[in-house]
Amino acid sequence: MYAVLAGGVGAARFLRGLTAIVAPEQVTAIVNVGDDLDRFGLRICPDLDSITYWLAEVVHPEQQWGRADERFTVAEELIRLGHEPWFTLGDRDLALHLHRTEQLRRGLPLSQVTAEVAQAFGVAVRLLPATDDRVETRITTVDGRDLHFQEYWVRERAAPEVAGVHLAGAPLARPAPGVVDALLSADAVLIAPSNPVVSIGTILAVPGIAEALRQTVAPVVGVSPIVGGRVVRGMADRLLPAVGAEVSAAGVAAHYGPGLLDGWVVDHRDADAVGQVAAAGIRCVATDTMMDDVEVAAALARTCLDLAAEVAGEAAGEQAGDAAGEAADEAAGEAADEGAVRAS
Amino acid sequence: MYAVLAGGVGAARFLRGLTAIVAPEQVTAIVNVGDDLDRFGLRICPDLDSITYWLAEVVHPEQQWGRADERFTVAEELIRLGHEPWFTLGDRDLALHLHRTEQLRRGLPLSQVTAEVAQAFGVAVRLLPATDDRVETRITTVDGRDLHFQEYWVRERAAPEVAGVHLAGAPLARPAPGVVDALLSADAVLIAPSNPVVSIGTILAVPGIAEALRQTVAPVVGVSPIVGGRVVRGMADRLLPAVGAEVSAAGVAAHYGPGLLDGWVVDHRDADAVGQVAAAGIRCVATDTMMDDVEVAAALARTCLDLAAEVAGEAAGEQAGDAAGEAADEAAGEAADEGAVRAS
Repeated sequence: MYAVLAGGVGAARFLRGLTAIVAPEQVTAIVNVGDDLDRFGLRICPDLDSITYWLAEVVHPEQQWGRADERFTVAEELIRLGHEPWFTLGDRDLALHLHRTEQLRRGLPLSQVTAEVAQAFGVAVRLLPATDDRVETRITTVDGRDLHFQEYWVRERAAPEVAGVHLAGAPLARPAPGVVDALLSADAVLIAPSNPVVSIGTILAVPGIAEALRQTVAPVVGVSPIVGGRVVRGMADRLLPAVGAEVSAAGVAAHYGPGLLDGWVVDHRDADAVGQVAAAGIRCVATDTMMDDVEVAAALARTCLDLAAEVAGEAAGEQAGDAAGEAADEAAGEAADEGAVRAS
Repeated sequence: MYAVLAGGVGAARFLRGLTAIVAPEQVTAIVNVGDDLDRFGLRICPDLDSITYWLAEVVHPEQQWGRADERFTVAEELIRLGHEPWFTLGDRDLALHLHRTEQLRRGLPLSQVTAEVAQAFGVAVRLLPATDDRVETRITTVDGRDLHFQEYWVRERAAPEVAGVHLAGAPLARPAPGVVDALLSADAVLIAPSNPVVSIGTILAVPGIAEALRQTVAPVVGVSPIVGGRVVRGMADRLLPAVGAEVSAAGVAAHYGPGLLDGWVVDHRDADAVGQVAAAGIRCVATDTMMDDVEVAAALARTCLDLAAEVAGEAAGEQAGDAAGEAADEAAGEAADEGAVRAS
């Protein structure tokens, strides 16, 4: 069983690769909900929807989010009625928001609605929101504003300089049912190449999830969202400095830290980071991370699973050694030590 | 100035005729909201919308409600997600519901939202909901169920036998701002050929509206919704008996009663009702009431205004007579007496 921490599009592409090499039923995606927003009273879950559409193969092929063969009749009418077009909703997309909102109103938790939607779309990967509770990623700007993430990202096109990021509601939030179990019982936990701050960071900000990652015996392997020193998509370059992290493959690994990460996969173009990451106690390999097609994504997923198996093998070796009363294998270095600590 | 009590399609056609002979700015339509319903959390106002679409000339020409050039992408997706198609929403229609619901959520009263929507659609008739408060037409059936009107009408196709009709919420409802003023200051009040029970009856059930109709000095003239002894559209034949009224042109006039009505316009096919209605103290004329085109509707509206002018003229004559200390003109009969009483 595999658990994947997931943002939106980058995670969706990664999951498509992973499910090309393992059965989708073996995969649980734990998905960011910090970007979720209410518009016209409807609950919109951009990351859950992007993943659902990708895995159902109904995603808009060029846009990479929203629906293929989408129509905008409702949006056109809304503009006529005086609404700003800044967050344009497609008709098909809107139907999902209407359905989700109706089910939530009937008292179903988001996790259950998400499971039903996945089933309706024929998605066999188990999709879990990080939490059923309402959390909201807020961006504070240096000019003193406190924006919903989508306002910052979609309406303001990530132009304002960011002073900080926080997940409103997080202190009272609990992981959705199944999240902690999936992390604790996984054979490997993977961190998709999603935004480390507003996708993965907001998952980890839900109390109990980072703790489960530190407790799990499973190896935790992440994929760098930085390629050639730059973000592949999104605005991580504007957000990483706001949380004190460097915009580089090694910088993101250091941000997650050896307490969380056992392995880190960087792009060939960032191969010089491998030594630096390993020195920080995290096993690191370089490969092709630009998932332009499913074959590259599948090969990347294979690299992640191989790295996870390596870490797990070493940890098992150490445990066996411990059981025999022998000293830990010093050659495994800090990374293995970290793994051993987590396995204990 | 003219005030019109209005249901949905029948009233819309009548208003189109009226605005062909008087300036639309002179017309206030007081519209039934008892059929309003929430679907997917969205407030749907069938009668207000039908009238808006008709007067904006964007109504579906065959269906006579909903939008011309409508699309159903959202509805198709909702069916995929497991929803019943019993109340199919068009995409364009849905946009209006989203807008209205958003404005109501922001705290605007329905009357203000309605005015803004009318303006966006270029409708110059002043549209007022009977009330800004939430009321709901409920149908109790002989098999003991209590249905929302739309459940009875759309989902169950008016099949269940009706035991009674009530307007839930009515005791606490107040007329929307402008409603009572429009009735008291009108030169004529017209009652559209809408369902006497679940369109007009639910307007009159809002405390203060029937009283204003009885108090106004304006003549009150209605159009029979019964043609040739049968309902033109809708299910008044199933509802009139439930409120103790006869399904006939004279029966509906008697249901409103001479305390409310000064004049009654019936179809040629019901000309035999004229004497019976007049005997009950209501002036009555027969004309063509089948508004298949705008010319017939305009001629019908003209007949209504002429009848109103006749009633007003007689009432004025009587008042003048009263002022001169003379006895009331007995030739005016009971109908004029009724008008005089109301004018006093």
